[in-house]
Amino acid sequence: MQNDSANRSSDPKPPTGSEPAGGSGGFHFDLQATDGRARAGLLQTPHGEVPTPVFMPVGTQATVKAVSPRDLHDLGATVILANTYHLYLRPGDERIARLGGLHKFMGWDGPILTDSGGYQVFSLAQRRKIDAGGVTFRSHIDGSEHRFTPEKVISIQENLGADFITCLDECAPPLDYDYNVQALARTHAWAERCKAAKTRPDQALFGIVQGGIFHDLREQSACFLTDLGFSGYAIGGLSVGETKEQMHGVLELLDDLLPADRPRYLMGVGTPEDLVECVARGVDMFDCVLPTRLARNSGALTRTGRLNLRNAKFADDPGPIESGCTCYTCTHFSRAYLRHLTRANEILGHHLLTLHNLHLMLTIARELREAIMEGRFQVYRRQMNNEQ
Amino acid sequence: MQNDSANRSSDPKPPTGSEPAGGSGGFHFDLQATDGRARAGLLQTPHGEVPTPVFMPVGTQATVKAVSPRDLHDLGATVILANTYHLYLRPGDERIARLGGLHKFMGWDGPILTDSGGYQVFSLAQRRKIDAGGVTFRSHIDGSEHRFTPEKVISIQENLGADFITCLDECAPPLDYDYNVQALARTHAWAERCKAAKTRPDQALFGIVQGGIFHDLREQSACFLTDLGFSGYAIGGLSVGETKEQMHGVLELLDDLLPADRPRYLMGVGTPEDLVECVARGVDMFDCVLPTRLARNSGALTRTGRLNLRNAKFADDPGPIESGCTCYTCTHFSRAYLRHLTRANEILGHHLLTLHNLHLMLTIARELREAIMEGRFQVYRRQMNNEQ
Repeated sequence: MQNDSANRSSDPKPPTGSEPAGGSGGFHFDLQATDGRARAGLLQTPHGEVPTPVFMPVGTQATVKAVSPRDLHDLGATVILANTYHLYLRPGDERIARLGGLHKFMGWDGPILTDSGGYQVFSLAQRRKIDAGGVTFRSHIDGSEHRFTPEKVISIQENLGADFITCLDECAPPLDYDYNVQALARTHAWAERCKAAKTRPDQALFGIVQGGIFHDLREQSACFLTDLGFSGYAIGGLSVGETKEQMHGVLELLDDLLPADRPRYLMGVGTPEDLVECVARGVDMFDCVLPTRLARNSGALTRTGRLNLRNAKFADDPGPIESGCTCYTCTHFSRAYLRHLTRANEILGHHLLTLHNLHLMLTIARELREAIMEGRFQVYRRQMNNEQ
Repeated sequence: MQNDSANRSSDPKPPTGSEPAGGSGGFHFDLQATDGRARAGLLQTPHGEVPTPVFMPVGTQATVKAVSPRDLHDLGATVILANTYHLYLRPGDERIARLGGLHKFMGWDGPILTDSGGYQVFSLAQRRKIDAGGVTFRSHIDGSEHRFTPEKVISIQENLGADFITCLDECAPPLDYDYNVQALARTHAWAERCKAAKTRPDQALFGIVQGGIFHDLREQSACFLTDLGFSGYAIGGLSVGETKEQMHGVLELLDDLLPADRPRYLMGVGTPEDLVECVARGVDMFDCVLPTRLARNSGALTRTGRLNLRNAKFADDPGPIESGCTCYTCTHFSRAYLRHLTRANEILGHHLLTLHNLHLMLTIARELREAIMEGRFQVYRRQMNNEQ
């Protein structure tokens, strides 16, 4: 891939805080090119390189649902996400540590990012209780009581051994100012404690910017976390009920505030169109269950919209999901066959749709990167928007 | 592979009937070596060669459950089975014909065998009514009424377009003599009508020998069908309630009666030990849902018995399902991980166990063939029996 140095950002924000931008523990982020706010970079990790922008398939329970690690390699996935909450409960982080860590356990030798478990715990609603020190909750599996503190989630993530780990944070309702003020205070206090608790040099800790749709809170959060200094910055609390315009506004604000030499990870986003529009606002890393979850509900993503393969109109359709798509599914199977598999509840249907949907997201991320490197991001963006 | 002509049967039974042993419509069966009753052969089909003995993975609904065609190729599968009853009901044989036939529909370019649908229909119990002309039944999906006649099941199988097709037969309770006498009369009349109804030269029709555990009925059936003449002979009505000794007795009888120059296919059998013991009695082809069905219920086949991966004793077991196994699952994942996947009901668990179980069955079939070709079948058989 071409490294067009003429497109490099002319005034990257200076690195701040104690976590170095490069070299520490096998980590390095090289901002290779910018095109407007859009950025192309290269993340070095102890488990290999991650070119950005990047889409990270979600492997909640130590498996990206319905595909194998060799499928993920074939698809060109470079980094995947796993969930601290789920793995802590089952099979247990200590067990995974005894078995050699998450990479070995799940047979994935590329980079992994773990979330802090906070998002899942706060989603438990009636089953959790927050205080300044952490959150007490009941397992969705067996109702047993557990407690996450900043130190505990770092300890769990050190047992799991992912390359990228994250601070415990509280994802507040995005439109509730007062709630966000309180949650942000907790999130910031927890970020300090997470940073202090971290011991493994071979893991990069990301701070999580919160503050809902409120620019003053987002600015406060970005400044606080940047002053603390992290290897990267996750952006939480978006795509959870606010409008696209509100989300985009927050991203543009943060693009001006976050250091240019650290990766930015937008949590839980998104769709193909989200990838394009959020890369346009300075985001480097994405994860979302959409492509895999949709696939298990007969849904296919395409550049021009979504298809429900259960629809009767596909019963005799000999064409692929998307004409021109080079994925295994589209080059070997018809919509008619996929409709048959989904109606018959065959596992192969979940598998083939998952392959296609992940292929599309990973391909769009690669195309975004190429466009940025070659200084034609806006052209690519217009093409993508016209297709939708 | 070595063709040890010294082991060829010294007096193969002469070919009989009107279906030629070789050359017709792209089909040919070459008996390459024998060792006692055990046989190694090579089946030529319009979709490639099938070395025998062979295990055929079952693809009931036009997919071998939980694996893709590329997985099947990687595993070394050479021929798979699909079910006429299921595909007739959904998505419909005429639809599959319009879409280019079953090979194209399911993306499998190797040989396929279809059963006649008789076994499924007769399993419907209260939902079917047999008469001399055929069987009327209600769909297990929507209760709609349908009728299979010999001509109808040939027409369906010609629409599907498998390489090997089978006659409509009635699988009777194996120990009920009077029932078997009546069922055999129908099965034989239907075999004549199926043979007369067949029109496609690129499909090989197998007759199905029935007669329960009764040697006089089995002899009557083998002689009747051999006189009619088929490209191969399926052996039905076994492994459905009789003892192993009774099954083995029938197989030895049929080995003496069936023409040596046609493949013999034992329907719905079996386990690793069945493969060895039935090859020892002259069988060439096998199919069984066991490896795939067991896999979806957390079960792993090994040379020394079965494992239930849900068992708590595997929670911290870092070893593979079977030491020395070269399958993708055993070379990449621990019992502990597979236990985690099965407990978490992850699709990947079904997939990985299916890969392992099919790998074992296909490997044993290959090993049996090599042992026969090299004149050491009895040594191999003793080794396998000692391991169990």
